[in-house]
Amino acid sequence: MQIPIDFLAHKAYLMRKWSIIMTTAAGSGHPTSALSASDIVAVLFFQVMRFDPIDPTNPNNDRFILSKGHASPILYAAWKELGILTEQDLMAYRTFNSVLEGHPTPRFSRSEAATGSLGQGLSIGVGMALEARMDHRSFHTYVLLGDAETAEGSVWEAAELAGHYQVNNLTAIIDVNRLGQSGPTMDQYHLERYAEKFRAFGWQPFIVDGHNIQSLIAIFAEAKNSSKPVVIVAKTHKGYGVADVQDKEGFHGKPFAKKDLDHVLQELAQQAGSAVKEVSYQWQPQLPKKSGASSPKTKPVSLPLPAFVPDKKVATRHAYGTALLAVGVAAPNVVVLDADVKNSTGTENFAKQFPDRFVESFIAEQNMIGMAVGLALRGKISFVATFGAFFTRAYDQIRMAAIGRVPLRLAGSHAGVSIGQDGPSQMALEDIAIMRALPNSIVLYPCDAISTYKLVELMANYDDGISYLRTTRGETPIVYEPDDEFKLGDFSILRSSNNDQLCIITAGITIFEALKAYETLKKENISVAIIDLYSIKPINEEHLAEFVAAHGNYVITVEDHYLQGGLGQAVLYALRNTGVTIQCLAVTKLPRSGMPEALLAYEDIDADAIIKIAQKMI
Amino acid sequence: MQIPIDFLAHKAYLMRKWSIIMTTAAGSGHPTSALSASDIVAVLFFQVMRFDPIDPTNPNNDRFILSKGHASPILYAAWKELGILTEQDLMAYRTFNSVLEGHPTPRFSRSEAATGSLGQGLSIGVGMALEARMDHRSFHTYVLLGDAETAEGSVWEAAELAGHYQVNNLTAIIDVNRLGQSGPTMDQYHLERYAEKFRAFGWQPFIVDGHNIQSLIAIFAEAKNSSKPVVIVAKTHKGYGVADVQDKEGFHGKPFAKKDLDHVLQELAQQAGSAVKEVSYQWQPQLPKKSGASSPKTKPVSLPLPAFVPDKKVATRHAYGTALLAVGVAAPNVVVLDADVKNSTGTENFAKQFPDRFVESFIAEQNMIGMAVGLALRGKISFVATFGAFFTRAYDQIRMAAIGRVPLRLAGSHAGVSIGQDGPSQMALEDIAIMRALPNSIVLYPCDAISTYKLVELMANYDDGISYLRTTRGETPIVYEPDDEFKLGDFSILRSSNNDQLCIITAGITIFEALKAYETLKKENISVAIIDLYSIKPINEEHLAEFVAAHGNYVITVEDHYLQGGLGQAVLYALRNTGVTIQCLAVTKLPRSGMPEALLAYEDIDADAIIKIAQKMI
Repeated sequence: MQIPIDFLAHKAYLMRKWSIIMTTAAGSGHPTSALSASDIVAVLFFQVMRFDPIDPTNPNNDRFILSKGHASPILYAAWKELGILTEQDLMAYRTFNSVLEGHPTPRFSRSEAATGSLGQGLSIGVGMALEARMDHRSFHTYVLLGDAETAEGSVWEAAELAGHYQVNNLTAIIDVNRLGQSGPTMDQYHLERYAEKFRAFGWQPFIVDGHNIQSLIAIFAEAKNSSKPVVIVAKTHKGYGVADVQDKEGFHGKPFAKKDLDHVLQELAQQAGSAVKEVSYQWQPQLPKKSGASSPKTKPVSLPLPAFVPDKKVATRHAYGTALLAVGVAAPNVVVLDADVKNSTGTENFAKQFPDRFVESFIAEQNMIGMAVGLALRGKISFVATFGAFFTRAYDQIRMAAIGRVPLRLAGSHAGVSIGQDGPSQMALEDIAIMRALPNSIVLYPCDAISTYKLVELMANYDDGISYLRTTRGETPIVYEPDDEFKLGDFSILRSSNNDQLCIITAGITIFEALKAYETLKKENISVAIIDLYSIKPINEEHLAEFVAAHGNYVITVEDHYLQGGLGQAVLYALRNTGVTIQCLAVTKLPRSGMPEALLAYEDIDADAIIKIAQKMI
Repeated sequence: MQIPIDFLAHKAYLMRKWSIIMTTAAGSGHPTSALSASDIVAVLFFQVMRFDPIDPTNPNNDRFILSKGHASPILYAAWKELGILTEQDLMAYRTFNSVLEGHPTPRFSRSEAATGSLGQGLSIGVGMALEARMDHRSFHTYVLLGDAETAEGSVWEAAELAGHYQVNNLTAIIDVNRLGQSGPTMDQYHLERYAEKFRAFGWQPFIVDGHNIQSLIAIFAEAKNSSKPVVIVAKTHKGYGVADVQDKEGFHGKPFAKKDLDHVLQELAQQAGSAVKEVSYQWQPQLPKKSGASSPKTKPVSLPLPAFVPDKKVATRHAYGTALLAVGVAAPNVVVLDADVKNSTGTENFAKQFPDRFVESFIAEQNMIGMAVGLALRGKISFVATFGAFFTRAYDQIRMAAIGRVPLRLAGSHAGVSIGQDGPSQMALEDIAIMRALPNSIVLYPCDAISTYKLVELMANYDDGISYLRTTRGETPIVYEPDDEFKLGDFSILRSSNNDQLCIITAGITIFEALKAYETLKKENISVAIIDLYSIKPINEEHLAEFVAAHGNYVITVEDHYLQGGLGQAVLYALRNTGVTIQCLAVTKLPRSGMPEALLAYEDIDADAIIKIAQKMI
């Protein structure tokens, strides 16, 4: 169906007008970045996309990701023109009680995804497009990128994967307005360079005048039947429509002054010409076709009891793989993402059993997280695993997922110096610190196969944000029974008596150092309790303080992680103002290659170190 | 000069042999990844490169970065054949006392850079090549990449920048052995796809048989005169030389068993044919030509007193810019890197005054950090600024820099909710936590222009690792005098008396909330001390505990940062076991867009919140 051109041109004009008005009202924002995208967004929302404006939860709606999140005014202006937002809403842009934030967040129900850290939208779009493919849905995903943000490597990670998997239900539009924040972009108006780059990455590129509505319509129509992902390279002008600023440097992120508003709007109207006139046309949304199955109800995810052999050692990373398989059976909407380490992180068996729900992301962690976000936003339970150290590669994407309140399940293997010979580049030593710092996150650290299995079940049911599970490379003995219970915020007591003089609080691999120390100290008539703090965030502070007070009120924390922000400092905070005496054993020297035992000793986090400090404290 | 082909072939054979022997001795490592690169590395070290094997500090040596760090055996084998390492050294590979780590680190003086987190080497190489250009040195930089790691976006960030700046003293070699860790790569043996991608990014590609020494020599010679950066796409076989594993899946990171070693070496010799025979040829290194000036002695960097107007507010991000200019004048080897936010972070003036020492990295933070590492490794004092939030994008690169003990100076602007309307995506709220967790890092957080200036001087002189400075978007009053002193680990007392009942420990923007609270509390006859903890890491624990004990032994910490891993938990750790009573005010709710005051109030980190909690504690 062809919508009248002059209707679309008028909508684009109105959206420019609103973009100017709302940023001036807010006294901040990026009007010029919105103006360059106005015609593209008008054509997308009023001509190209099939969606139900009333029901954003419709799983068949076409999806629109504003990767250049600072252009938020154009998104809000579109929803104003779609009848969902009012003028009053727009005038509250960027104020504390408004859901129309400076950069889109899910507080505005039509945002699709939190953006604003550049270069992340394309990965989210790939994730959504993959969901459509998995679930046989007919919706199409559109991602609007700024030209400057294509310098971000994450864009090319997404581009390469989409090209490789021929994700042809995905269209990226690059708003080539030539100007970045502080100067011209690398490629400026060399549109063919963008096209060449995307072509080399397996995409079908189109070049278009991003202010010519007729051309835009034609290109979107032509692009529809590509067997490859499509990129539309649209030449635009930053500040389009206002001659004072159009295509000029120095106006990024600068709203027009209140005193100039009338003049600016006049200028805008003048340049818009006939587009200023209202067009009498009864626009109706093109509702999406029904497609795919309805989403299965899978919560709570409930697993059978784990079946590990009691006296056989298992690496928690492998137990993670076992649990993941069970979760995959229990919940058909579980998906698993890997970055070419599936044989190390335990996800290989899931890949074999559920190939259609497994996304091999190759060595591109940023895009892996972005895709997991897109999949989660479309109803999937996304589990992502890599070496814990390599989540640092995607920490910005994880940060943005937390801001977007996206439930992501992350499992970081090869934690700590205990991995041994591969050396420090492969050791996760800051993962607890960075995952604790995320709002609404949980951080779990099992020591054996059974607790791993149970904690994975717990993660599957945690929907309020990021959950992080830390696993170990080496094999560890089973210390729990299959029917032991594990609760968020809780801990378990592995050793204790009525005459304990101190508590050793630890988790993961160092549990076994503590257990060794326990035996030696026992022989010296030093009685200690051993606490498995498998839930490092949250911690039930009251419960922990109570136990510690009843068991000597002396504490040693031990962890195979840097001191700062780790388990010890989490415990210290949980026990603040309780009068406890505490010593924290943690990794404090830059580690190196060597055997695990040598490294645990070098960092003073082995049984000997625990014994020595316990003797000193008592 | 043409080295005999059979000499090079023999060297390549020996390097394969050593790679096998040392990984089998270690019982771990990646022999098959070393074997594929053996001919390339032999040709580079014995034919192509100009360097002094005896003196790795020679600033004119050609540089070799092993981006695929897991192939470390081939690097160590090369240095064995160059006479720098002994067989005994190789046999100690990956043991605790050896400097030959699983992935290269600077503990081995010929490593050039710590690698092992994939996709980072090319950025480091670009940084080194830029140093050569800045300092008019004739050396050439070679970076050896694995094919699988080219999926990392950071590779394309580096590629794009090198293409844009036509960095033609740089050659990347891709060891296309077809197999990643857990399966085939996306492009497998489609060599032309690699070539097309790099060509689209502004490079000159060459395709070559990576096991044909004659072809390799010819290609390196041909590549020499390119006006663009060169990529050599080399077709190789993983496990080359050992038929049992050659070009087969399932052998990544797997050394040969000790019991199989003889057989494997026989097989290797058989496939090597005539290359097994020693060639009598007196190889001599091609020493580098002298070029460029000798490095200036610039330490310690000493700045004139700051000259800010006492009663004029200045944003610390702008004071950072002022300090940076002064540092630039004092030390000619200071370089500054930006990711298209120079007008926001304060570095714009440096860019104008010292354009030749300023690297516009566009919106690609990972490559920016990687280049800063390369520049620092070649003797530059690298200062890098972006929004504090966006250092999360490059946290893996920063982590690797810390492992490499590279002194990097990082300044993160727009810290905390106090940035206001732009919303959470732009707020650095986890930066203190992530920077504290780095080994050998320092974390500084000034509240006014003078302390900013002084702390930048301090950073310029900190060479033991990463230094991080946190700056604020909004303007703040001057609270210090130009001759006030600031020391690493120290703090300063902004308010105190002999009858203080509690201490407010804070830094940065919340200093001014504390000062407001001070006045109100004073009226209520509650006397408090105010401590500016501008050095969050390290902290002089003894000194702080002493002061706190003498001033009520009650503490409130306040910070515009998430609770976990921030200033409060650093203080809590510093004051552990002192009997202090402490309350930590920090950001605990997911923030949003709004005015700074509204957000400080929402998070309970403003003057009112301080007053309320102080009243409760006393």
